[in-house]
Amino acid sequence: MEKQLAVVIPAGGGGTRLWPRSRQHTPKQFLDIVTPGRTMLQETADRVVPDLVEPENLFVITNARHADLVRKQLDGVPAENVIGEPVGRDSAAAIGLMAALLEKKLGEKTIMVVLPADHVILDPFAFRAAITAAAEAASNGYLVTLGIPPTSPDTGFGYIQRGEQISTNDPPTYDVREFKEKPSKAVAKQYLATGTYFWNAGMFIATVKVFRSLFNEHLPEMEEQFAELVASVGTPTQKDTFEAVFPQIKKISVDYGIVEKATKVAVIPAQIGWNDVGSWTRLAEVLADKADEHGVVANAHHIGVDTTDSLIYSEKLVTTIGVSGLIVIDTPDGLLIASKSRSEDVKQIVETLKAEGKEKFL
Amino acid sequence: MEKQLAVVIPAGGGGTRLWPRSRQHTPKQFLDIVTPGRTMLQETADRVVPDLVEPENLFVITNARHADLVRKQLDGVPAENVIGEPVGRDSAAAIGLMAALLEKKLGEKTIMVVLPADHVILDPFAFRAAITAAAEAASNGYLVTLGIPPTSPDTGFGYIQRGEQISTNDPPTYDVREFKEKPSKAVAKQYLATGTYFWNAGMFIATVKVFRSLFNEHLPEMEEQFAELVASVGTPTQKDTFEAVFPQIKKISVDYGIVEKATKVAVIPAQIGWNDVGSWTRLAEVLADKADEHGVVANAHHIGVDTTDSLIYSEKLVTTIGVSGLIVIDTPDGLLIASKSRSEDVKQIVETLKAEGKEKFL
Repeated sequence: MEKQLAVVIPAGGGGTRLWPRSRQHTPKQFLDIVTPGRTMLQETADRVVPDLVEPENLFVITNARHADLVRKQLDGVPAENVIGEPVGRDSAAAIGLMAALLEKKLGEKTIMVVLPADHVILDPFAFRAAITAAAEAASNGYLVTLGIPPTSPDTGFGYIQRGEQISTNDPPTYDVREFKEKPSKAVAKQYLATGTYFWNAGMFIATVKVFRSLFNEHLPEMEEQFAELVASVGTPTQKDTFEAVFPQIKKISVDYGIVEKATKVAVIPAQIGWNDVGSWTRLAEVLADKADEHGVVANAHHIGVDTTDSLIYSEKLVTTIGVSGLIVIDTPDGLLIASKSRSEDVKQIVETLKAEGKEKFL
Repeated sequence: MEKQLAVVIPAGGGGTRLWPRSRQHTPKQFLDIVTPGRTMLQETADRVVPDLVEPENLFVITNARHADLVRKQLDGVPAENVIGEPVGRDSAAAIGLMAALLEKKLGEKTIMVVLPADHVILDPFAFRAAITAAAEAASNGYLVTLGIPPTSPDTGFGYIQRGEQISTNDPPTYDVREFKEKPSKAVAKQYLATGTYFWNAGMFIATVKVFRSLFNEHLPEMEEQFAELVASVGTPTQKDTFEAVFPQIKKISVDYGIVEKATKVAVIPAQIGWNDVGSWTRLAEVLADKADEHGVVANAHHIGVDTTDSLIYSEKLVTTIGVSGLIVIDTPDGLLIASKSRSEDVKQIVETLKAEGKEKFL
């Protein structure tokens, strides 16, 4: 049986962890932070088009203010495939709406693949093999998630504990025993020791029918809202309807709302070179193979004297003397210089700017 | 006897040690590097006008390309007091020409005070007391130099060894026993141990008559050139004459050319908070009293998290996390980040830019 796939990219994030390049008006998914000249959203699309889906089957749901930017960045994707949210109502609203829309457009047998817009995946071949395996399990009625084999006891992710193996595909598929909230460091270490836990990277695969049943069962209050929104898509009333209905939708994550409540859930270990680029230091890890012999990655005209182990972004000349382990992010209106070990504290900078009322820098 | 003083500021330097702020088109003396809003040239003038001289008796000799900039920066100084050199021919040419010009304009009894444009003097009262003492020795026929009590065995300066005390003024005046070239570290340490050596800071005071005699005796070949140049000043042929004559003048420093050959030379110890601002790190020393409680001097909108002992210049927002001992100099087209212990190596950056043919950054 030929399976029809559709990829849905939620691109509504507005994180500040890659400030000062990532801003409210251009969050990281719309920036060429990883690969000069290609944004993270574009790279997310590149991984699936055309190998897994044609551009007609690529859908994006994003903040309405970014919808035109998404259309501009995703050449070949029909404009109406990009849905703008007038306000963010968390991931259940976004994914539930897209499932309802795909049911109408492509039918309930369609396999819906949900892929965040702002992650790095260094091995697209392994990634597509994992999605193909996931699609098979999905067509057997599973809600499937890709599990990232953890490389450290990170406390910033939810974890997935695998149960019985249910397929011998490569990669194999496992029942999910349990989803775990972000753990303490000690608990995360225990998880790693067992070898049966994965990071939850927010990639979900299921038929539209399964998604629709889960929403119907666990978030039934959203059904009428989804119906009204879907009916308006492509009509002159779409904007008004979205602005009237969206703010009413319950704010809840797709994990809490349906995934953790689903009973037929599978996980596929995904050795795909995944990284959420959650800080400049994590980006530096991703770019390690682009470093020069001194461990310096420079997206800038850089002249370094005794400079090692640093990440440098600028549109202008950057010169460094006798420094090591630095993150240097220069933008036209703001410069960040951080020790690599401290780049997560950029959130303190952002908080300070908020407190000072310096909106223009956010 | 009322003494007439005239101050001559040689402002032709084009150093690169404060790159990227100091450039060929705006060397450090024309920048407000030390005091925001007031250039080093202006501060040099402020120290003598009006306490020692009226603006009519302030003269500047500089690169012709900077003459108008000097006139703009020195409000009240007559335009014709600013002499532009079409090419730099070292300090003997500049000072000898100004002595010849002052002889014509103000007479040979005038006491000529030569003050570099790009030094910091933190105690202007002590400075003026030293100049007043120097003027007295000068009126007795001495070529006087201010001697900076050395604070370290620096190998970047020439040294002056004092001999017999010749006046009990405060500060006292000494005969000069000998001028010494830039020494090795070991020799500099010996100098410091004796307590009788001073740094030569290039500040000279003598009557015009004494300067003229010294040039006449030791650099007689320049006499005709000076005469031709002085005759043209203020006439329509000034520019053409300067362009014809200047390139012919011998290139030699005033130290080698006359000062070290003079026999009646005095030195006045000058505890005046002097600093040549020869590197960003030396500037940071000068600005130490402007540092915040973390040792950070920021001429920028700066937000620091765990940031200590750093100097930051930028016209835009600069944020730093977990760094210490950094020099951060941000300009619209070039950024320098250097360890404080290495800021003198900025010359390596400048050499690299020259080698790469990147003239626009120089």
